[in-house]
Amino acid sequence: MPRKQQALKSELGWSSADRITVRGLDLPNQIMGHLNLGDMAFLQLTGRKPTPEESKLFNAIAVTLVEHGMTPSAIAARMTIVGAPEALQAAVAAGLCGLGSVFVGSMEQAAILLETALPYGKDHAGLDLEKVAVEIVERYRAEKRILPGIGHPIHKPLDPRVPRLFAIAKETGFHGRYVELMIRIQERAAAAAGRVLPMNATGAIGALSCELGFPPRIVRGFGVLARAIGLVGHIMEEWQQPMALEIWRRVDEEASEAARQQAGA
Amino acid sequence: MPRKQQALKSELGWSSADRITVRGLDLPNQIMGHLNLGDMAFLQLTGRKPTPEESKLFNAIAVTLVEHGMTPSAIAARMTIVGAPEALQAAVAAGLCGLGSVFVGSMEQAAILLETALPYGKDHAGLDLEKVAVEIVERYRAEKRILPGIGHPIHKPLDPRVPRLFAIAKETGFHGRYVELMIRIQERAAAAAGRVLPMNATGAIGALSCELGFPPRIVRGFGVLARAIGLVGHIMEEWQQPMALEIWRRVDEEASEAARQQAGA
Amino acid sequence: MPRKQQALKSELGWSSADRITVRGLDLPNQIMGHLNLGDMAFLQLTGRKPTPEESKLFNAIAVTLVEHGMTPSAIAARMTIVGAPEALQAAVAAGLCGLGSVFVGSMEQAAILLETALPYGKDHAGLDLEKVAVEIVERYRAEKRILPGIGHPIHKPLDPRVPRLFAIAKETGFHGRYVELMIRIQERAAAAAGRVLPMNATGAIGALSCELGFPPRIVRGFGVLARAIGLVGHIMEEWQQPMALEIWRRVDEEASEAARQQAGA
Amino acid sequence: MPRKQQALKSELGWSSADRITVRGLDLPNQIMGHLNLGDMAFLQLTGRKPTPEESKLFNAIAVTLVEHGMTPSAIAARMTIVGAPEALQAAVAAGLCGLGSVFVGSMEQAAILLETALPYGKDHAGLDLEKVAVEIVERYRAEKRILPGIGHPIHKPLDPRVPRLFAIAKETGFHGRYVELMIRIQERAAAAAGRVLPMNATGAIGALSCELGFPPRIVRGFGVLARAIGLVGHIMEEWQQPMALEIWRRVDEEASEAARQQAGA
Repeated sequence: MPRKQQALKSELGWSSADRITVRGLDLPNQIMGHLNLGDMAFLQLTGRKPTPEESKLFNAIAVTLVEHGMTPSAIAARMTIVGAPEALQAAVAAGLCGLGSVFVGSMEQAAILLETALPYGKDHAGLDLEKVAVEIVERYRAEKRILPGIGHPIHKPLDPRVPRLFAIAKETGFHGRYVELMIRIQERAAAAAGRVLPMNATGAIGALSCELGFPPRIVRGFGVLARAIGLVGHIMEEWQQPMALEIWRRVDEEASEAARQQAGA
Repeated sequence: MPRKQQALKSELGWSSADRITVRGLDLPNQIMGHLNLGDMAFLQLTGRKPTPEESKLFNAIAVTLVEHGMTPSAIAARMTIVGAPEALQAAVAAGLCGLGSVFVGSMEQAAILLETALPYGKDHAGLDLEKVAVEIVERYRAEKRILPGIGHPIHKPLDPRVPRLFAIAKETGFHGRYVELMIRIQERAAAAAGRVLPMNATGAIGALSCELGFPPRIVRGFGVLARAIGLVGHIMEEWQQPMALEIWRRVDEEASEAARQQAGA
Repeated sequence: MPRKQQALKSELGWSSADRITVRGLDLPNQIMGHLNLGDMAFLQLTGRKPTPEESKLFNAIAVTLVEHGMTPSAIAARMTIVGAPEALQAAVAAGLCGLGSVFVGSMEQAAILLETALPYGKDHAGLDLEKVAVEIVERYRAEKRILPGIGHPIHKPLDPRVPRLFAIAKETGFHGRYVELMIRIQERAAAAAGRVLPMNATGAIGALSCELGFPPRIVRGFGVLARAIGLVGHIMEEWQQPMALEIWRRVDEEASEAARQQAGA
Repeated sequence: MPRKQQALKSELGWSSADRITVRGLDLPNQIMGHLNLGDMAFLQLTGRKPTPEESKLFNAIAVTLVEHGMTPSAIAARMTIVGAPEALQAAVAAGLCGLGSVFVGSMEQAAILLETALPYGKDHAGLDLEKVAVEIVERYRAEKRILPGIGHPIHKPLDPRVPRLFAIAKETGFHGRYVELMIRIQERAAAAAGRVLPMNATGAIGALSCELGFPPRIVRGFGVLARAIGLVGHIMEEWQQPMALEIWRRVDEEASEAARQQAGA
């Protein structure tokens, strides 16, 4: 007996001879010229246009994630474009592949932490946030786990993106309980550690993603889509002002020097 | 004698304990809350903020490229996320890898064609565009090559994105000689072919990228960065309304049926 | 004060004008013509040539993982090559991106499970394997976790690769305590579940990887390197006997049908 | 009227409850323990087991391509694994993405050049190879193009892999007209250039791939599948003896120094 097939269904977009529709909107007439790229991302992810407040906050989050200097991800993309200059898309892909648990993942982990504490669709108005924060910090300390969104190797005592993101959240009406809880977690964590322990941008973005109602595990995608933009910029700079070959030569010369000498070569 | 090292230099971004700078602007104070995501891409690629007109046109180009339905690229991303649900970044990367010569490449090829005819930094005010278009079309026909940006399998007689893009170009003052030349190429190509042969969105975007002064070979990057957004949307839909496993099962069942029967299995 | 740099050091390979060395061996004279591709992989991963027994077992493991039919990974690679036929490497890369926790990961998880129970470098001759197996199965059942390497949707009551791998292990002297423990885990798990629950190939390979002394977390790499071979084969078949465009068209037609009808298009 | 569907068909592999078949052979009984990994690659790509001579030559080609030291591809893979240590497959994918026209592509280009001159399935016994070589070299010089497979930045006057590959070809009966033509092209090119101009490994492999009858455009795939093995080795070494973070820090410190100083930071 043949297996019963399940229907394939997508609601993102379709086109016919004279129409192109994305998320139910007419692309030429209702999107192009009306939505900026951040709004379009919001539409693609939620199925509706953002309000002006959502637009401001979501665009602010996204632009924060575009460019972080010569990261491992940027170096990987530059290394790739020198070998395959005809495949820009593959160089961006190579750069994205490293946006995993270590860098971008903490944003998603922060959102998961917060949404687990204050689940969507449930009433948690009565919860004592201070108590929730204390429990979370104690649990992480007991399990010797790093709190997502807390701590930064360079930006001390303050990650300058955090107050700015929270100011925009306030201005747009999104400074809610997820932000409150994240702030308390940071305060409790720093107190427990007895040292400067700032909230970093991934913690703030994790909290704001919850305020906007995004499913936590898509939050890593914000970093991915924003960094794709940044990586195209790195490839363009690599063409204009190359450094990949020089990095390669330096690494190759130094790394194999010991083996070379040992062999008397 | 040791090789003389060359300096490594990037001007995209840097950070210190209390500052984060991107393209010379202070990220928290001059970018976040001020630039939308399309403007940020423009900044990252050009080193300066767009004018309001550039912003409108560039954002319109970028949003056009985000979502094109169930493309091979989207299917590849969905196939990837079912095997590695913990690596969203790799699923987006897999989807991007197919944005090569066949789909996104024609945008870049159109820009190269136009900029080769009307090179940046040279005076070509005296050129007869009609004559240039005729020469290009005749050359491509003689070499039996497909003109980039011309023709569409579905959108006939008109790709609805093209008039909309050109209307925005007119409104923002970017309906210049590259657009003119592209229109004449389409007209000449259709006349020579003796059939309906529309300009497609990649032709219009190639021309507008030249109007904005972008180096032609970065134009493929517009498609890559926009589609990264689209792919995050596909992954999110795949989680909510899966189809990858069903596609897999159907393909597997059908593709190996002949071999299976031959083996009597 | 400038940061103290750490040395970069690699022992994999180096070359000079007249010599090429890999893992301390002269590539032309000691490797080419002497080692097969599986032996070369063993050399690359361990720093030494395999014994004849190791060679036979390791090659058997590797060939097991090359080709598994029209998997999601193969479909992703084929979807990619139609968009970027000039970038075969990126199509293989796209296919590899999905070899994550769901498919290939269970091999690594099985190895981790076994090596955690019987750690390398420690004496565990006195351990009662039956007791260890019972404890593991009970723990996984209590935590409602799936045991890695156990169970298969199709190959019941037996995955035919498992007895073959274990026969080769016996023949080559690698049927040791890791294999013994894995067999007992399977037996205990099936008994506890009260139904047919075979060991699958990833369980056997996880155990044999431990017999060979590989660090568990590199075991996923066996699947990755083997599947790269398989994917090149899929791309070659796609060129000779295409199916990607047809899959695309079917998926696109069906998936957007509902949205299209709703819009009256 | 609905579109007529085309059948999906693959002959690579299939499985049923008790059987797993690859390329028509029973995987457990006819492949595992009988074919080494290079033979398996040959089977996957050609549909048949290699003869002992084909096995020796094909394995020699493949092992040549596994490990080339700290290449841009290896650096990209290492950069990726530090950001996404949980996604080894994506790090290998990132490394493969750079195996494009610059490095691995010349192997494919050499094969295309040779097979175009001496097409498969046509009688070219009467062709004067010396004349063919002269014409090719003159054409490339006139067009100022680089001959694929000729020249090497380090291995002068001789790439030590080339005589070794050709010795194995002689031993296995594959030193035929493609090898002859490639040798003459190298001789003519060096004579025309008036300087030392060795054939490199990619030229020899391109010629031998033609002797083995492979379609030229799959030849890049040999490099891709072999390097996947090499990259797993680099990831393993990166875990044991890390350098990616140090490279990152050095690059980041140096590259943004100028911008930092200019900003007085």
